[in-house]
Amino acid sequence: MSQDQIHTIPARKGAAARLNQGQIVTVINTHGSQVVDTWAFNAADMTEFMSMEHSRAAMLRVNPLVGDTMRSNRRQPMLTLVQDTSGGIHDTLIAACDRFRYEQLGHVGHHDSCTDNLAAALSAIGLEPPETPSPLNLFMNIPVHGDGTVSFEAPVSTPGSSVSLRAEMDLIVVFSACPQDLLPVNGAACRPTEAHFRIGDGGQVGG
Amino acid sequence: MSQDQIHTIPARKGAAARLNQGQIVTVINTHGSQVVDTWAFNAADMTEFMSMEHSRAAMLRVNPLVGDTMRSNRRQPMLTLVQDTSGGIHDTLIAACDRFRYEQLGHVGHHDSCTDNLAAALSAIGLEPPETPSPLNLFMNIPVHGDGTVSFEAPVSTPGSSVSLRAEMDLIVVFSACPQDLLPVNGAACRPTEAHFRIGDGGQVGG
Repeated sequence: MSQDQIHTIPARKGAAARLNQGQIVTVINTHGSQVVDTWAFNAADMTEFMSMEHSRAAMLRVNPLVGDTMRSNRRQPMLTLVQDTSGGIHDTLIAACDRFRYEQLGHVGHHDSCTDNLAAALSAIGLEPPETPSPLNLFMNIPVHGDGTVSFEAPVSTPGSSVSLRAEMDLIVVFSACPQDLLPVNGAACRPTEAHFRIGDGGQVGG
Repeated sequence: MSQDQIHTIPARKGAAARLNQGQIVTVINTHGSQVVDTWAFNAADMTEFMSMEHSRAAMLRVNPLVGDTMRSNRRQPMLTLVQDTSGGIHDTLIAACDRFRYEQLGHVGHHDSCTDNLAAALSAIGLEPPETPSPLNLFMNIPVHGDGTVSFEAPVSTPGSSVSLRAEMDLIVVFSACPQDLLPVNGAACRPTEAHFRIGDGGQVGG
């Protein structure tokens, strides 16, 4: 994908992109309250991928802040959070939604899901995920309360706010504009929207 | 494995067992401060397994308490925590240790790891893991602080204390007595020990 171009993550759908080591991808919350499930795979070996359980062990934090580096399932640096104008609330705790989730929430019939979006976005570039890794859920607001409980809350991000991530190796990244419309994770209106991203070189955050 | 028999999880190693739906496995912290990484797989289809990221979304809690049910990657009930005399501190956040972890901690040469123990314990009964799922780390003390940071602390469990888990489907369960001896997750002495388990019917907790 060319640099400086704005790419769309369609509402309820996914998109994949290649990132060279050192490039920075900026994910824009165009309409303000859209969660974007994010995965990263080693471009040379898809069995190595960004892992939330390995990242937490290294960054010693439940949710990443600017300066934190997400790690792979082989504990290698994958993506570093280098800029964040969204309020700094992202989630590493919750699985990507899937058809089982929507069935349990009472939905009947087809429902888009981040799990299916991951597979479809990779398929569009001739790849397939070795599994569905636990995603980095950008803009997703899952507070951990003092008693260890968690809750699903609306994002604190605002329209046009963004997160910039630097690739620490050559990567395939996948974004899914989460189609969750039965819980307020994409805002109180439960109305999933598109989001956008652009890729820049490492010399300028956000390209 | 026969009921009522005490099975050993050797120090630094793993052990697998079959559990029928309704059976209860009691994991005993024999020496008091040994972390036991725990996995569960659908006995009829190993690609379905206990998933911490799916469990957190269902139990709405970072760490399970008595009454909580861990879910599979298809969001089905797998294991329910039915009794706990260990102080109630277990971890769902941190990946199983692996050779990369010990390399990064400065260890040179072979080091046992929970990831290798999972594969070896399944191999011993003719099975292999489809991947290394994020484990339920029994007795592991990883507090989440108010600022979202986490830390690696010694267990609060005591010698002979235990956790009992009821199988909600026919399962293959795997336990690994974590060989971590470079951080105090297995107690301040950093000395991994054996642990034990026994399997009982559902009529009596702990069999």
